[in-house]
Amino acid sequence: MKQVKDVIIIGAGTAGLTALREVRKRTDNFLLINDGPYGTTCARVGCMPSKALIEAANAFHRRHAFEAFGIRGGERLTVDLPFVLRRVRKLRDDFVSGVLKATESLGDRNLAGRARLLGPDRIDVDGSRFQAKRIIIATGSRPVVPDSWRSFGNRILTTDTLFEQETLPPRIAVVGLGPIGIELAQALSRLGIHVVGFDMARMLAGMSDELVHAAFADLLGREFAFHMESAASLSETPDGIEIRSGQIRVVVDQVIAAMGRRPNIDGIGLETLGVELDPRGMPPVDSATMQISDLPVFLVGDANGHAAVLHEAADEGHIAGFNAMAEHIQCFKRRTPLGIIFSDPGIAKVGQRFAELDLSSTLIGGARFAGHGRARTAERNKGMMRIYASMANGRLLGAEMCVSAAEHMAQLLALAIECKLTVGELLRMPFYHPVFEEGVRAALKKIASKLPSDRKPDLAVCDSIQSEALD
Amino acid sequence: MKQVKDVIIIGAGTAGLTALREVRKRTDNFLLINDGPYGTTCARVGCMPSKALIEAANAFHRRHAFEAFGIRGGERLTVDLPFVLRRVRKLRDDFVSGVLKATESLGDRNLAGRARLLGPDRIDVDGSRFQAKRIIIATGSRPVVPDSWRSFGNRILTTDTLFEQETLPPRIAVVGLGPIGIELAQALSRLGIHVVGFDMARMLAGMSDELVHAAFADLLGREFAFHMESAASLSETPDGIEIRSGQIRVVVDQVIAAMGRRPNIDGIGLETLGVELDPRGMPPVDSATMQISDLPVFLVGDANGHAAVLHEAADEGHIAGFNAMAEHIQCFKRRTPLGIIFSDPGIAKVGQRFAELDLSSTLIGGARFAGHGRARTAERNKGMMRIYASMANGRLLGAEMCVSAAEHMAQLLALAIECKLTVGELLRMPFYHPVFEEGVRAALKKIASKLPSDRKPDLAVCDSIQSEALD
Repeated sequence: MKQVKDVIIIGAGTAGLTALREVRKRTDNFLLINDGPYGTTCARVGCMPSKALIEAANAFHRRHAFEAFGIRGGERLTVDLPFVLRRVRKLRDDFVSGVLKATESLGDRNLAGRARLLGPDRIDVDGSRFQAKRIIIATGSRPVVPDSWRSFGNRILTTDTLFEQETLPPRIAVVGLGPIGIELAQALSRLGIHVVGFDMARMLAGMSDELVHAAFADLLGREFAFHMESAASLSETPDGIEIRSGQIRVVVDQVIAAMGRRPNIDGIGLETLGVELDPRGMPPVDSATMQISDLPVFLVGDANGHAAVLHEAADEGHIAGFNAMAEHIQCFKRRTPLGIIFSDPGIAKVGQRFAELDLSSTLIGGARFAGHGRARTAERNKGMMRIYASMANGRLLGAEMCVSAAEHMAQLLALAIECKLTVGELLRMPFYHPVFEEGVRAALKKIASKLPSDRKPDLAVCDSIQSEALD
Repeated sequence: MKQVKDVIIIGAGTAGLTALREVRKRTDNFLLINDGPYGTTCARVGCMPSKALIEAANAFHRRHAFEAFGIRGGERLTVDLPFVLRRVRKLRDDFVSGVLKATESLGDRNLAGRARLLGPDRIDVDGSRFQAKRIIIATGSRPVVPDSWRSFGNRILTTDTLFEQETLPPRIAVVGLGPIGIELAQALSRLGIHVVGFDMARMLAGMSDELVHAAFADLLGREFAFHMESAASLSETPDGIEIRSGQIRVVVDQVIAAMGRRPNIDGIGLETLGVELDPRGMPPVDSATMQISDLPVFLVGDANGHAAVLHEAADEGHIAGFNAMAEHIQCFKRRTPLGIIFSDPGIAKVGQRFAELDLSSTLIGGARFAGHGRARTAERNKGMMRIYASMANGRLLGAEMCVSAAEHMAQLLALAIECKLTVGELLRMPFYHPVFEEGVRAALKKIASKLPSDRKPDLAVCDSIQSEALD
């Protein structure tokens, strides 16, 4: 057995690297182990290449507004798909190279290999054994692909392979219309590919507010066909893959599997920890400490199946890295839930989800953007927003929306919820004119009109000074 | 003398109409008087038509990013200027018609005419006299045009006439590069007009942070020529107007006068109120009550020269309308200062201006967006942001920026400042990935690194629970 490490971190993705940053503030006696390519899921195959694809697709799609603006010639624009994909990879490579800097000076404290736990304080890496006072597991996730689809070879794409394609065929099915599926399906459709979508769920993009979903589904349905509550079964045909779902039969050239991501916890030896695993094989993890049960082991990022988004993975790495070197395990307050889907219009969910609300004690304020001034001048007046607040005290609970600038308005509402503001308090901020955020205000005012404070101006009254009566 | 009104409101613009809304909650015995066209400055000649013009211009300008994205044919796009202007007017007419609804059912409580104060409780309207317990003056503002320019006739444009043009000539000078001048100059330049700008000031758009200004000036200078700290003198030539400024001589077809707006207080009889007027003819107005001195007279909106932006005018109308019918004059807390200029990249100023800071007790965090992930994927990675915070306690003071999505980040920072948050508290909100707001976080983290709390994680620690030590 070699020297006992203070901390071993398994996985050099976002969660592992943020853990490393905290650990390094307190010790040099650590070991980072990574299996497979370095560079985070986000930079290599996730957020960044997808945004690069989406931005090109949206820039091309914008030509449909050109006639309304008085811009001529939009119908003659074309898009060079191989170029788009090369640009995606070029940007991706830049983002990945930025991430790689975090590990390049670690020397033998960075080990490429496959780690397996042998217990709560020791691991095996391809035959070598290491002991550690603390272990942080940050092994990430991988796309779910049904085993039976393996035989279709490179007709099946995932985010691991999509961005590697030199070009894309004319017909693509996207199976799974959650956040990732929606982003990719819309972008590919806007790049001129004939896209068809399938999902087992009732609502797109993991939405839960019926009205907001209906607005989005209506808009998306004008761009490409999709089939909800539909299991898709695939079979090979001479010229592609036939997808059957109920009465529907569609032949496509390639299929994107976007049915979610699976935590990489199989085969890493969690069963050696001596704690009970749930049916998915997941041990109990405290999201305030990232600790597994009362063990000196932490499970963070996509690997714990909690919230597979970058900022949560970074927080979890941060917490675990802090706690791994802390004298006492410290409990942290997690941030207001925030989910953004980079569709157009964008989708965002903040705070409590509609499905989680007690509707009998909730006030809801909605805003449609069809008549919104700024949105109309920009030819982006599609979609709607709904904000939820407590009937008891007017405190903001959450929001769901599909509208242009959703990502920004979601950030604003996330801050308001993080600060535990009431509707009245949020209405005291300045809303410049004309901005999309005036839609937030419109929705807030609808809630305020149902609260007892209705007749009060938005503006706060000064505490002390009160002038004399005039008469 | 006719019946004594509870309230007379002079001016049916934004400030007057918001005052009216408050007044009507409490009395039907009011009179609204308006001189000139109905419809607000914002809807008729301000925010709305300018945004309609800008959005068309920016949509057309976006073609310059097409090659980077892989979109072909952008160089063959053309813009139909008469169509653009017709669309501006069509949208403008819609916005104005929305505003007109506020006055259409008022009957003889709405009087078209020119009001003149005869004292703090009576007015004359084209020969008819009215008495009121309270008077709210909301007479708005008008573009400044030097008298000597009148002789150039329709070669001189202002926002009152620009949007009425059937088309625009190939060469336009914009004299005055404050917020309005910048918006118009950039939009016209992007619509293919050869624009040249002049301003007496040292900085564009009323900016005050040298570094942010330098970034914007560099970007704008790639689009059209402008001359700062330059007085422009005009003379007629056979084919247009020659503008001279120092060594510079430029001949243009039309000149836009964008040298600011003058409060409409001349000739309305303020001298009859018995209070001292300042050299501009302005009486003392309390911005917390909108009251003139201790009189039953209120001066609101552009007319008082305080902050000629819509949301402030609306607040002032609100305050005056409330106070005009209140038993006691109520003092209101005004909102965090917020200014947005809809250039591209956008400019925004929040809270304390750079020029107002005590630099010896201020920490500044900057973020350039050249390397910002999302901004790069969108080909919008231009510009920079600077955030100011108190050295003593880390409290946010203000920000100035020129960057894509500036308007949204400014709204977020305005809320944070309104809530008196510290840098550390604002860092506790979720920042999704990848969003422009991560640039805000980068700037905040630079400030945080200079504060004593540096080594603390962004995340709040739970108050109570603290687990046992592991060892």
